[in-house]
Amino acid sequence: MSAKPSDLPGLDSFAEDVRKGNCTALSRAITLAESLKPEHQAFSAQLIDKLMPATGKAIRIGITGVPGVGKSTFIEAFGLQLVREGRKVGVLAVDPSSLVSGGSLLGDKTRMGELASEESVFVRPSPSAGKLGGVAAHTREAILLLEAAGFDCVLVETVGAGQSESDVARMVDFFMILLLPGAGDELQGIKKGVLELADMIVVNKAEGENRERAMKAARDYRAALKIVAPKDTPWKPPVVVASGLAREGLNEIWGKALEYEKAAKKSGLWAEKRARQRKFWLWALIEHDLLAGFKADPKVKSRLSGIEADVEAGKISPPLAARKLLSFYLGN
Amino acid sequence: MSAKPSDLPGLDSFAEDVRKGNCTALSRAITLAESLKPEHQAFSAQLIDKLMPATGKAIRIGITGVPGVGKSTFIEAFGLQLVREGRKVGVLAVDPSSLVSGGSLLGDKTRMGELASEESVFVRPSPSAGKLGGVAAHTREAILLLEAAGFDCVLVETVGAGQSESDVARMVDFFMILLLPGAGDELQGIKKGVLELADMIVVNKAEGENRERAMKAARDYRAALKIVAPKDTPWKPPVVVASGLAREGLNEIWGKALEYEKAAKKSGLWAEKRARQRKFWLWALIEHDLLAGFKADPKVKSRLSGIEADVEAGKISPPLAARKLLSFYLGN
Repeated sequence: MSAKPSDLPGLDSFAEDVRKGNCTALSRAITLAESLKPEHQAFSAQLIDKLMPATGKAIRIGITGVPGVGKSTFIEAFGLQLVREGRKVGVLAVDPSSLVSGGSLLGDKTRMGELASEESVFVRPSPSAGKLGGVAAHTREAILLLEAAGFDCVLVETVGAGQSESDVARMVDFFMILLLPGAGDELQGIKKGVLELADMIVVNKAEGENRERAMKAARDYRAALKIVAPKDTPWKPPVVVASGLAREGLNEIWGKALEYEKAAKKSGLWAEKRARQRKFWLWALIEHDLLAGFKADPKVKSRLSGIEADVEAGKISPPLAARKLLSFYLGN
Repeated sequence: MSAKPSDLPGLDSFAEDVRKGNCTALSRAITLAESLKPEHQAFSAQLIDKLMPATGKAIRIGITGVPGVGKSTFIEAFGLQLVREGRKVGVLAVDPSSLVSGGSLLGDKTRMGELASEESVFVRPSPSAGKLGGVAAHTREAILLLEAAGFDCVLVETVGAGQSESDVARMVDFFMILLLPGAGDELQGIKKGVLELADMIVVNKAEGENRERAMKAARDYRAALKIVAPKDTPWKPPVVVASGLAREGLNEIWGKALEYEKAAKKSGLWAEKRARQRKFWLWALIEHDLLAGFKADPKVKSRLSGIEADVEAGKISPPLAARKLLSFYLGN
């Protein structure tokens, strides 16, 4: 808490600026949440806590899909549709796509130019790499900040590298997967377990001559979901076809999301899922910080790689290795 | 390390007894691994470390399936098949089925009576509930103890409550799922993500008039796996039909397991997977112990449930709650 006064704004007035929807303040608040500096982290935690009563009112929608599925085009078209419905739309990108495409700052701006130029839209490009606790940690905070600023629809995009799909599924109300038209052996790139996270599947690029193939793919996915998804869930993930490019099927998708919202609010699932997600977030932070403290401990640090190599090689058993490392850490 | 000498055997001679395949020593070693007493834990870690050079030679097979799929009958028949192949077979049950069926100690003995009475077979009924680090933690140790005692085929059974399927999948070489004959809407009880853990799917109870339905179900699962499983993996999980009751299809299943072993050893996947599993185990133990230490801290303990409830209710943000709890713990 040794922040220089010049470095940070006053908490109360800054919180008020965010709450009023001031985009400069909102941007800065997200940047502070992403910062690695301890004083920024502390300030950000206090800010978010202060804004908590103003959060929670948006529908949070996660969108994933492999590169090439047309996510940006889809999100732009879908976001414009939501604007026409009178929504204030925030778009967050989870993955450090700078690692993939050599910088998404420009990329996202270009790709979603039409959406980003709308008055009631806030597009936040991918955060830079190297964040505390993985890409997902600060996206949760950014969702709350957007909500506090009055955005009532938050789209969280992930390209689905590593852990990020299940992380995003755990921070949104409604998770949709975009897939390419194609079927059977043609289908590829769907990571293990991802299909089963979906609240909805969208076969995108169903325009022109792709339309028939997309319909066929949708039927195949419906059959696969029957087997993969448990029978007794109240919500059966719908499989729809759409085209971000031709701007078709977006109405139906939004209708399904609203239908889910209505049903889940009625059954209590909505509030229950959010409470579970908050608790999950708490423990993810605690576990992360405990482990980070352990790994940063000098006595652990100096022995870790050697012991880890011995464990991998089967030279020492994991239980004894864990006991050793923990006794270095706890100093006994 | 304050064990009373009367309570524990001498490490060297006891390790030698286990290694010679003395079943009394083996049973006791597993009991010590499951014990909650710190001195038993310490002894067990040393024992397992001592036995490490004698471990690793078995094929470790995980078997899961919903209650009613006929797991015990299948495992008994499969185990007897392996005995006929000249294998020494160890059977471990992961789930505390006492919670489900009111005590599996008697149940397992009865259900697998024919198998358990074989000379070269060791059946370990479900451990009691309330173990350190979940049911899975000590099953890993039991696998190593069985291997040290000369068992060259270890079957790990899980009924698939909670986390246990993915835990078991992470401690075996080959993971198979038993499913009931039936198809489409008739299929049920397959938990999210479980299908995708499988190295093989067995449609069990394919006897008599069920045979046709089982074949149909196998075709449906094959189609579903094409969509669910990633295209570029070297091993395509086979889908076979079998009957534990009629003792049919067991040869084919064992053949597939050996085929997998051969291919995975050749490609290096076998050793790589085991090294990864050992490292995963190390970190699971460290994380568990760090978290257990945190939760047991008196300052944390007295505030935890209140703060957790506030997080669930949205009264305090998870980042601030985590900061608070960690500062109680670290005492600053």
